[in-house]
Amino acid sequence: MSNKTTIIPIFSLQEAQKALENHIKNLNTEGKPKDLYAPIEYIMSLGGKRMRPLLVLLGYSLYDSEWKNAVAPAIVTEVFHNFTLLHDDIMDNAPIRRGQPTAHEKWNENTALLSGDLMLIKTYQWFGAAIPSDKLPTILELFNKCAIGVCEGQQFDMEFESRNDVTIEEYLEMIKLKTAILLGFSLELGAILGGAKPFEAQQLREVGILAGIGFQLHDDILDVYANPETFGKRVGGDITENKKTYLMLTALQKEKEARSSALQKWINKTSFDEAEKVEAVTKIYNDLNIRTLTEEKMNEYFENAYNKLDELSVRHKNQKQVLKQFLLMIQERQK
Amino acid sequence: MSNKTTIIPIFSLQEAQKALENHIKNLNTEGKPKDLYAPIEYIMSLGGKRMRPLLVLLGYSLYDSEWKNAVAPAIVTEVFHNFTLLHDDIMDNAPIRRGQPTAHEKWNENTALLSGDLMLIKTYQWFGAAIPSDKLPTILELFNKCAIGVCEGQQFDMEFESRNDVTIEEYLEMIKLKTAILLGFSLELGAILGGAKPFEAQQLREVGILAGIGFQLHDDILDVYANPETFGKRVGGDITENKKTYLMLTALQKEKEARSSALQKWINKTSFDEAEKVEAVTKIYNDLNIRTLTEEKMNEYFENAYNKLDELSVRHKNQKQVLKQFLLMIQERQK
Repeated sequence: MSNKTTIIPIFSLQEAQKALENHIKNLNTEGKPKDLYAPIEYIMSLGGKRMRPLLVLLGYSLYDSEWKNAVAPAIVTEVFHNFTLLHDDIMDNAPIRRGQPTAHEKWNENTALLSGDLMLIKTYQWFGAAIPSDKLPTILELFNKCAIGVCEGQQFDMEFESRNDVTIEEYLEMIKLKTAILLGFSLELGAILGGAKPFEAQQLREVGILAGIGFQLHDDILDVYANPETFGKRVGGDITENKKTYLMLTALQKEKEARSSALQKWINKTSFDEAEKVEAVTKIYNDLNIRTLTEEKMNEYFENAYNKLDELSVRHKNQKQVLKQFLLMIQERQK
Repeated sequence: MSNKTTIIPIFSLQEAQKALENHIKNLNTEGKPKDLYAPIEYIMSLGGKRMRPLLVLLGYSLYDSEWKNAVAPAIVTEVFHNFTLLHDDIMDNAPIRRGQPTAHEKWNENTALLSGDLMLIKTYQWFGAAIPSDKLPTILELFNKCAIGVCEGQQFDMEFESRNDVTIEEYLEMIKLKTAILLGFSLELGAILGGAKPFEAQQLREVGILAGIGFQLHDDILDVYANPETFGKRVGGDITENKKTYLMLTALQKEKEARSSALQKWINKTSFDEAEKVEAVTKIYNDLNIRTLTEEKMNEYFENAYNKLDELSVRHKNQKQVLKQFLLMIQERQK
C-alpha cells in the first residue's frame, strides 16, 4: 500500500463519458479506400453505454488520480468491442444495431468483414500508441487471451443454437467468454496502467468477470421482462428464437423435474404466432418462478464481485465506492 | 559494418523449408470449440511455397548465422498470410484453395470468418511469444502498418472489379498493398531480428516490395500463359472474369491508342463461351505484344530489387547471393 495521502479524484461518470465521447470523435478513422474506413467511424458513432472504457478509467482511478491519462487506452477496449459487434452482426444476419442499419446492410458483407479485420488490427495499433512500451508486451498478452476467449464464446454461442443438450454450466461458461472476460480485462488494464501490482490487477479482473456474468444474466431477464416502451428492441426476442438463456435452461430443468413438457412443446413448434408464444412461455416462466431464480443468480454474481472488490488493496479507497456505485447501476438498471 | 569474419552459413532452401514445415506441424492449434480451431490447422497444412517465412530467414541470415532462431517468428508471417486467404476466400466465394475445399465450404461461412479472426489474434499472440520484448513494440508497429495496407489492397481489388477506369498506376499501387508489402515486411522482420540497423532493415523492406510487385506481375502472366498441364488451376481465369490485371490494363491502353475496341467488346459481353473468350483475348494480347511488355515491367521491378540489394550493407555478404538466388527463382519460375 502507498503511504501517500488518499485523495478523492473529482471524477463524475458524466465527466468521464464526455472525455470518452470527445476522444472517439477525434479518433483518426480516415483512410483510403473510403468504404473500408467509413464503417469504423459509423459503428463507433452509434453510441452505447461505453461500459468497457468506463471500467478502464474506474480501474485506473483506484491507483492513480490522473484518470485522463487512461482515456486513450480505454477507448481501444471500445474499438475492440465494436469490432466484435461488426463481425457478430454479419454472423447473426442482424439488420439493426442501436436503431440503425448494421454495417453489412449499409455497405455490404465483404466491406463489413474487411472493415472489421481492419478494426481488429487498429485495436493493436492504438494499444501500441497508447500504452507505454515497457507495459505493452504484458498487456498485449493479457488482451490476446481475452480476445481469443471472446472468439471462443461467440463460437459456443452459435453452436448452442443447434444443440438441445446445453447445460446451465456450459451457458455460464459461454457468457463468461463472450461477454464477461472483456469487462474483466478492462478493469485489469486500467489497474495495470494506474500502477497496481499484478495480483491486484488480477483480482480486479475477477471482479469484472463476476459482474460481467451478472450483467449478461440481467440482459437475459430484460429480454423477457423489460418495459416494451423503453426497452429499445422487441421484448421476448430470445423466446421466439429459442435462445438457450439462463431463464430457458432453468425452466427446462424445472419442467423436467416436474415431468412436464409445455415449454419443450413451444420450443419444438416450427409454426406459431410470435406474440402468443412469448405470452405462453412468459407464463410458464412466471409459474416456475424463473425470474426470481435468475435474479437470485445474478445478484449472487454481483455480491461475489463486491466481496472481491472489498478485499482488494488499492491506493484510492474512495474510488472503490465509485466503482461499486457503477456496478450497482449495471445491476439495478431498468427492470 | 561488422569486423567479424564473414562466414557462410550452411543454409539450403530445402533445409529451411524442412525446419519451417516441422514448426508448422508442431504449432499448438488446439482448443475449444474444436470447429473454431480446426480451420487453422487445416489451412496451414494445405502447403504452399512458404515464401514469406523463407524471406524472414533469408533476411535474418544477412546479419546473423543462427537462422534457426528466426523460425518461430518467421512462421507467424505465414499464419497472417493464411488468415488473409481464409477471409479472402469468403469474400471471393472461392470453392477451392490449393486443390482442396476452402474452409467456408468445409465448415461454413460463420466458422471460417470467426476462425480467421482467431487466426489474426493468434498472429499477435505468436509474435508476442517469438519476438524479444525489447523489439516487440517496434516490430508490431511495422507489422500493423503492413497488415492495414493488406486490408486496403484487398478492398481496392474488390472495388476495381466494378470500376472501368482503373489506371495502371492504381493497379500497381493495389498489388503493392495486397501482396508486396507483406513480402517486404518479411525481409525487414528477419533483418531486425538478425540485428540490422533500422535503415538497413528499411532498405531490405524496399527490396521485398519491389520483388513482390514483380512476383504479382509474374502471377498475372502465368494466369494467361502458364502450361495448363502443370499450372494447377484453370488458365485464363483472369480473362473470363475481366480481372483488371497489368496485362488487361496495358492491352486496353494500347487498344485505345489504336482506336480499336475488340478487347472492350469481349469485356462487355455478358454471355460467351469461356474457351472462346480466353482464346480471343489471348490473341489480342499476342497481337499487342502484351506478354513481352508485362515481362519487361516485371523484370524492371526485379532489377530494381537486385540493385537495392547490391547497395545494402550486411554482415554476411554471401547470403546476399543466396537471397538473390531465391528472388531469381521467383522471377523465373515456370513460364
